[in-house]
Amino acid sequence: MRRTNLTVDGRRLAARIEALGRIGALPGGGVCRLALSEEDRQARDLLVRWMEELGLEVRIDAIGNIFGLRRGRETGPPIMTGSHIDTVRTGGLYDGALGVLAGLEVAEVLNRAGIETRHPLMVAAFTNEEGARFPPDMMGSLVHVGDLALEQALATEGIDGETVGSCLARIGYAGKAPVGCPEARAFLELHIEQGPVLEREGITIGAVEGVQGISWQAFTFRGRSSHAGTTPMAMRRDAGLVAARTVAFLRRLAAEIGGDQVATAGSLRFSPDLVNVVPERAELTVDLRNTEEGRLREAERRLAAFVEEAAADEGVAVASRRLARFPPVTFDPAMVARVEAAARRLGHAVRRLPSGAGHDAQIMARVCPTAMIFVPSVGGVSHNVEEFTRPEDVTAGAAVLLEVLLELLEGEGP
Amino acid sequence: MRRTNLTVDGRRLAARIEALGRIGALPGGGVCRLALSEEDRQARDLLVRWMEELGLEVRIDAIGNIFGLRRGRETGPPIMTGSHIDTVRTGGLYDGALGVLAGLEVAEVLNRAGIETRHPLMVAAFTNEEGARFPPDMMGSLVHVGDLALEQALATEGIDGETVGSCLARIGYAGKAPVGCPEARAFLELHIEQGPVLEREGITIGAVEGVQGISWQAFTFRGRSSHAGTTPMAMRRDAGLVAARTVAFLRRLAAEIGGDQVATAGSLRFSPDLVNVVPERAELTVDLRNTEEGRLREAERRLAAFVEEAAADEGVAVASRRLARFPPVTFDPAMVARVEAAARRLGHAVRRLPSGAGHDAQIMARVCPTAMIFVPSVGGVSHNVEEFTRPEDVTAGAAVLLEVLLELLEGEGP
Repeated sequence: MRRTNLTVDGRRLAARIEALGRIGALPGGGVCRLALSEEDRQARDLLVRWMEELGLEVRIDAIGNIFGLRRGRETGPPIMTGSHIDTVRTGGLYDGALGVLAGLEVAEVLNRAGIETRHPLMVAAFTNEEGARFPPDMMGSLVHVGDLALEQALATEGIDGETVGSCLARIGYAGKAPVGCPEARAFLELHIEQGPVLEREGITIGAVEGVQGISWQAFTFRGRSSHAGTTPMAMRRDAGLVAARTVAFLRRLAAEIGGDQVATAGSLRFSPDLVNVVPERAELTVDLRNTEEGRLREAERRLAAFVEEAAADEGVAVASRRLARFPPVTFDPAMVARVEAAARRLGHAVRRLPSGAGHDAQIMARVCPTAMIFVPSVGGVSHNVEEFTRPEDVTAGAAVLLEVLLELLEGEGP
Repeated sequence: MRRTNLTVDGRRLAARIEALGRIGALPGGGVCRLALSEEDRQARDLLVRWMEELGLEVRIDAIGNIFGLRRGRETGPPIMTGSHIDTVRTGGLYDGALGVLAGLEVAEVLNRAGIETRHPLMVAAFTNEEGARFPPDMMGSLVHVGDLALEQALATEGIDGETVGSCLARIGYAGKAPVGCPEARAFLELHIEQGPVLEREGITIGAVEGVQGISWQAFTFRGRSSHAGTTPMAMRRDAGLVAARTVAFLRRLAAEIGGDQVATAGSLRFSPDLVNVVPERAELTVDLRNTEEGRLREAERRLAAFVEEAAADEGVAVASRRLARFPPVTFDPAMVARVEAAARRLGHAVRRLPSGAGHDAQIMARVCPTAMIFVPSVGGVSHNVEEFTRPEDVTAGAAVLLEVLLELLEGEGP
C-alpha cells in the first residue's frame, strides 16, 4: 500500500529537464556542458534560481557544490537527494540532471501540499561528476565526504590546462560555505541506467545494489619520430603502434577476465600527429570496470604486463599515471530494500542490479546509508547525444524517489 | 679528373643553414616551419634577400614558388636546382633547406669567380613540399609542372581549416608570375638521405635512381559513442578499436608485402576523445611506400580488405579518402650517371639508391631530365628535431652539385 497520495507532476519535471538541456545544447541534439565551463555557469544560475523560487536555502561550498535546503520540524542532518548537472562533451539531457531536477520536483510537491517534514530535505548538485574535463570524476562529492583535499581538487589541471580553482572563481561558484557540512542522514539518487538491462527486460525501476569498481589510467608511450618513407620497419620505435596494440588488447582482456568486466580506450593522441612522421609520442587513457575488486585488480595486472612487453618489443618507453581508482561499492541493504518496496507499492516492475557507471551516490555511501533508483535508457545509450529516457519512466522514477524520501523524511521504518 | 677547380665554401653554406634554421627554431633544437606560416614567411623573406644580394632575379609565382635566376650567355630554359624551405612540425635544419641553400652557394661561387655560364641557372624553393599542413605534399612543384590546377591548390584546406590561397595572401607570397614558366633544361636536387643506408655503409654521396611510390589515405571510422561503464563489450561499436586494429595491421602488412615496403600510421584522432566514452569517430592516416608500383597496389588492396572486414566486425562505418598518390619514379639515367661520375672525380665514395621520401625532383622528372644527390643523415633520422648531417658531408654534397651543374650549365656531355 502506498504511504502517500501525493503525486509528482511529470510534465513539470520534463519542462525543467528540457529547460536545463537548452543550456549547452548541441546543434543536432544533446548537450555539452563540461564542468565549470560557461555553459555550466549558466546551468548553475538557472538551478539556483529554481531553488530560490521553491524557497530552498541555497548554500554553495568551496568546491562549488550547490545545496538547496528545505527545513523540517526538527533541525539536525537532512535527508539528501541529488546528482550533478555537468555533462561529457557529447552528452544527453538526463545523465545527472534527472536526479537534481527530480529532487526539486519532490520539494515542489511538498511545498504545494503544505507539508512540513520531520527532517530537513536537501537537494544537491555536485561539482564535476563526469571528470570529462578535470580528473577525477565525482570530484565534488569526494571533497564533500572528505576523501579528496579541497586544495588538491582546486589545483587540478584540466584537459585544457586550466585549473578547477581558477574556473570556479571565473564562473562565480567558488562558494563561501565550508566543504563537508552538513552531514546527511541518508542519500538517495535517481539516475538513468545508462545501460541496456532494464529496457531489455521491460522493467521500469532498478534498485541499485552497488557500483562497479573503476580504474582509470593514462599511459604515455615515448618512441622516436622518424621519416615515414625512409625509416625501415625494423628500425622504428613507433609510440603510436604500441598504443594501438594496447587498444586492441583491451578487447581481448575483457573477454579473458570475463564476468561484467569492461575495458575502454576513450582517448588517444599521437604526436607530432602528421601523416608522414612515425609517432614519437602517444597518450592513451584506459578505463577498466568490474563489480569484483579481485577481477578488477587482475585486469590491471594483465594490462600492465601487456603494456610493458609491447613497449619493450618496440623500444618504446612507457609511463603510466593513475587518473582515478574507486573500489566496487555496496549500497545500504535497507535503503535498497526501501527502493524495491516503494517501486512495488507504486505498481512498477523492479529489479536489483549493479551500476556500471560511477555516481556521486557511491561516494556518499562512505558517510551515510545510500541507495540509487535507476530508470531505463532507450537503447542503453548514454554519454551520447541520443541519450533518452521515456517521459513515463522519468515520472515513475521521480514517484519512487518521492515515496522513499517521504519515508526517510518522516523517519519511518521500512 | 675534375672539370673545375672552383670550390664551394662549406662554412658559408653552413652559416646560411644555421641562419635559416633560427627561423621557427624549437626550444630544444630543430625547427617548426609549416608551409605558409608566419615562420615560413620570415624564412622566405630571408631567402629572397639572399637571392637579391647574389644578384639573382627573383620571381614569385601564383602558388608562392620562389625562383632566383642567374642569367647565362644564352637565353632559353635554365638549368634548375633547389628544393623547399617548409618543414614538418618537429623537423630539422637540413631537410629541404640544404638543397635551396646549396643552390645559392653554387651561384655565389660562380659570382666570385666571375663566370658567365652558357645556360642560365635557376635556384628554386617550392611551396609546401612537406604537405604537413596542406595535402598533398610537393604542392608547389605539382602546380609548377601543371599536374595540379592552381585553383585547386589555392582552395586546399589545411589541418587548421585555413586555405592555401588565404595563407599565401596573408604572408605576402601570392606572387604575380604565372605558374609553370620558365621550363627547365634539367633539374638537380641536393638533399639529405633521411634514411640510414649511406651512414651504415660509410658512403658520402648517394646517386638517387628514383623515388618510392607514395600512397596517402585518410580513413574515417564512425561507430557509436556510449558509456564506458555501462555498455557491455558485445554491444559496442567502437570506432577507436577498429582504427587501432588497422594501425597494428600495418606492421604485419609491411612484413607480408616485403621488399622495401613501409607502412605508417602517423595521425590518429579519436572523438569525443574522453576517458569514459567509447569513441564514436576515429580519423586515421596511412602512408604506404614502395619502389614497385605492383607491390604498392597490392599493399593498398590488402589494407582496404582488412579495413572493410575489421569495420564490419565491429558494426562501424568506414570512409576512405585519398590524400596523395605518386607512382614510383625513375630518374634520368644520364643525369644519375653524371652524379655518380662527379662524385668519383671528387674522390667521394658513392652508391646508387632509391629515395624513400618524396621530393620535388620526382615531380620535375615529369618535365625534364632530373636526378638527385643524397648526403648521409646521422642515425638515419629525419622529420625529427635531431636530424643532422655532418658539415663535411654537407660540403661534399654541395661540391658534387657544383660539379654537375657546371657541366649542365655549359651544355657539356658526360
